[in-house]
Amino acid sequence: MSEQNTLAHLQTVTESLESGATMQIRYLLNGALPAQDVARLLESSPPKERKLLWELIDDKNEGEVLQYLSEDIGAQFMKDMNTEQLVAVSEHFESDDLADLLQHLPETVVTEVLASMSTQDRMRVEALLSYPEDSAGGLMNTDTITIRPNITVDIVFRYLRRHTELPDMTDNLLVVSRSDRLLGILPLTKLLVADTDETIRDIMETDCTIIDANTPVNEVAQLFEKMDLVSAPVIDSESKKLLGRITIDDVVDVIRDEAEHSMLSMAGLDDDEDTFSPIFKTTKRRAVWLGINLVTAFIASYVIGLFQNTLDQVVALAILMPIVASMGGIAGSQVLTLVIRGIALNQIGATNTRWLLNRELIVGLINGILWATVIAALTALWFDNLMIAYIIAGAIIINLLFAATTGTLLPILLKKLGIDPALAGSVILTTVTDVVGFLSFLGLATIFLL
Amino acid sequence: MSEQNTLAHLQTVTESLESGATMQIRYLLNGALPAQDVARLLESSPPKERKLLWELIDDKNEGEVLQYLSEDIGAQFMKDMNTEQLVAVSEHFESDDLADLLQHLPETVVTEVLASMSTQDRMRVEALLSYPEDSAGGLMNTDTITIRPNITVDIVFRYLRRHTELPDMTDNLLVVSRSDRLLGILPLTKLLVADTDETIRDIMETDCTIIDANTPVNEVAQLFEKMDLVSAPVIDSESKKLLGRITIDDVVDVIRDEAEHSMLSMAGLDDDEDTFSPIFKTTKRRAVWLGINLVTAFIASYVIGLFQNTLDQVVALAILMPIVASMGGIAGSQVLTLVIRGIALNQIGATNTRWLLNRELIVGLINGILWATVIAALTALWFDNLMIAYIIAGAIIINLLFAATTGTLLPILLKKLGIDPALAGSVILTTVTDVVGFLSFLGLATIFLL
Repeated sequence: MSEQNTLAHLQTVTESLESGATMQIRYLLNGALPAQDVARLLESSPPKERKLLWELIDDKNEGEVLQYLSEDIGAQFMKDMNTEQLVAVSEHFESDDLADLLQHLPETVVTEVLASMSTQDRMRVEALLSYPEDSAGGLMNTDTITIRPNITVDIVFRYLRRHTELPDMTDNLLVVSRSDRLLGILPLTKLLVADTDETIRDIMETDCTIIDANTPVNEVAQLFEKMDLVSAPVIDSESKKLLGRITIDDVVDVIRDEAEHSMLSMAGLDDDEDTFSPIFKTTKRRAVWLGINLVTAFIASYVIGLFQNTLDQVVALAILMPIVASMGGIAGSQVLTLVIRGIALNQIGATNTRWLLNRELIVGLINGILWATVIAALTALWFDNLMIAYIIAGAIIINLLFAATTGTLLPILLKKLGIDPALAGSVILTTVTDVVGFLSFLGLATIFLL
Repeated sequence: MSEQNTLAHLQTVTESLESGATMQIRYLLNGALPAQDVARLLESSPPKERKLLWELIDDKNEGEVLQYLSEDIGAQFMKDMNTEQLVAVSEHFESDDLADLLQHLPETVVTEVLASMSTQDRMRVEALLSYPEDSAGGLMNTDTITIRPNITVDIVFRYLRRHTELPDMTDNLLVVSRSDRLLGILPLTKLLVADTDETIRDIMETDCTIIDANTPVNEVAQLFEKMDLVSAPVIDSESKKLLGRITIDDVVDVIRDEAEHSMLSMAGLDDDEDTFSPIFKTTKRRAVWLGINLVTAFIASYVIGLFQNTLDQVVALAILMPIVASMGGIAGSQVLTLVIRGIALNQIGATNTRWLLNRELIVGLINGILWATVIAALTALWFDNLMIAYIIAGAIIINLLFAATTGTLLPILLKKLGIDPALAGSVILTTVTDVVGFLSFLGLATIFLL
């Protein structure tokens, strides 16, 4: 329900913008709507409107909205701020989000922002900046609540009551030694049912998920999914000291990004592709992808060109040849998509690749024979020529078998070479199915028809 | 790190299976590995191995593993169980997961399993079964901890201490009236810092996210993402009574499914496509998609066939025509993918469609002119024929403009018609770019060359 409101608000705002009724928009943007909804509104607006709306947000509300904006869009607005404004908005951020955003700004600005912060906050952000953005260290927050193992539950309660509030998503207290090494966790659900005179050491959990700061974020996400975690402590890989914790809200972003990554990459789109990117940015990105695919297309044309003489004699071949290439492309894409997902979910390894390839070859063969028969029958009816029907049937079966092999092995090979299978896979696959399709169809025709 | 272990375990298990060393596998499956890892292992195994491994799991451990298996695979194993076994394993499930699994079983079995449960549990599961699986009601759990508004913090602490444990992911206590209407929530993080003599009514939050049982799950997911929730109460839409709560672990599954849905659908794959589905199931699903695409391919061939006479006279056209279709298909897919994601994220509505179409037309025009020039130059060099170069340039520009229009408007139209744009979009788009590509190229050639 709240989602439909974003589009409804957008309608209102657009109409008000057109009629120049900025008062009403100001009212909506500065308090009437929650900051999360304002962020959604900005993300759903074309560039010019987006900038106008941003200017209508009062300075004091900008930080609140920024923290909910997608990183890419937020960074754009921050680039236009002076250091003073940046310092003001940075107070609204959790340390991990701030660290992510700072990475988009020029180094001199970052230094100034850091210099303006309290020593404690600065040290936190600097610690986060020292880890890559796509590692557990870059994803973590430093807002942990730590306790010692030798105190009683009653003392923990009294200690907590001294806080005015606990950080959001606090589901565990972290039990640490005097030298800050993590000894275990104490879930709040366990603390609340414990006898007040029990000692923390006796009720804490030591068999818990602990994350090394260097763990890649996609592995962190898989751990959270597998273990149903709300938060998990992060430690330094060498000293084993507690550094911070990762919370599920940040992991959810990773999961969405990761799941979208394959789909966007397969279409040659950037991960941080903004639906409402301005024309120039969009054109540049798309042009590159079209250029890459043009190479593929010319390779296919070159193969066809080899059979110029054959085509000159039997025009039916020119009419039918796209069918062979297209069926191979479709069948190959299905396998490719399935294997890319399997790799992302970490399901595919040395032991099951062979089974997978076998299955795909059998599936390709059965579907090849089935659809080759259908296509041959239709071809025979259309062109009244049995030989062409046999030839297209053979070419379809050959192409579907190549499609199965390429679709299965190509992404596994690319992954091993450190190349993103989602990005490079579909281009290479199409080249293979086009080339094999035209080569087998026109090649068989040259042998049997001329 | 734990993820690589799944593949490592798989290696061990596969080798042991081959050498017949079932003792070691039994040991791994029944206690040495956590149930989550055993579930991953089963999901990453081909059907025959999967069945063998399942048989090596002791009856008493089956329920534990089942709760972590993906619904589709879990249901397959449950179909082979007798009622007694089903009753035994059902004790391991949270009520929402059990309700989901029961929907895969025959009605007579479901009745028997329900009859075997305690009245309270049965009522819970029956309540869940009365909501569609893809609504908040189908996603919720009934394990809420409720308190009354007029008691003090101290009494809450004493009440909680009477439990032996609190449900996982309990981050809020739910404050309800005598008639079970939800009045507000009390976050544990707030309870723990409150004075013991404060009254719940004074510290509870009333401005919290409450979910109607009929809300579709994708909207629930968007609410959780937007508001950074760990759990949220679910109420009946009419009586406003508290029914249960939704927790983030279940929402994470929804988010992953939803994000994967577009990618899988665009390749014509089912959402619950199991990477290691058996041959027959896979063949059937793939065959349908190939058949649908064959219609597209024949439509394209039919269009080419209209120009048989032209092709007969200028064979260069047959060599070049796949380039026109392919560039259109690639450009169109990019727009389509972007718009499908925008629709899924609820960013695209009546107010910004026009802007989006404008941008895509301009981007298409610029890229059309750019690549048409390149292709024309290459064509002129290759075939030493300026007229064909002009013709292919014109056709490329026309096809890229059609691709932009179709890619933008088609998914929006399909969505309005209640058809899944991810599923139907790519097939229709390809038909359009093929037909327009061949029609414009061969049509222009017929006019200007003959």
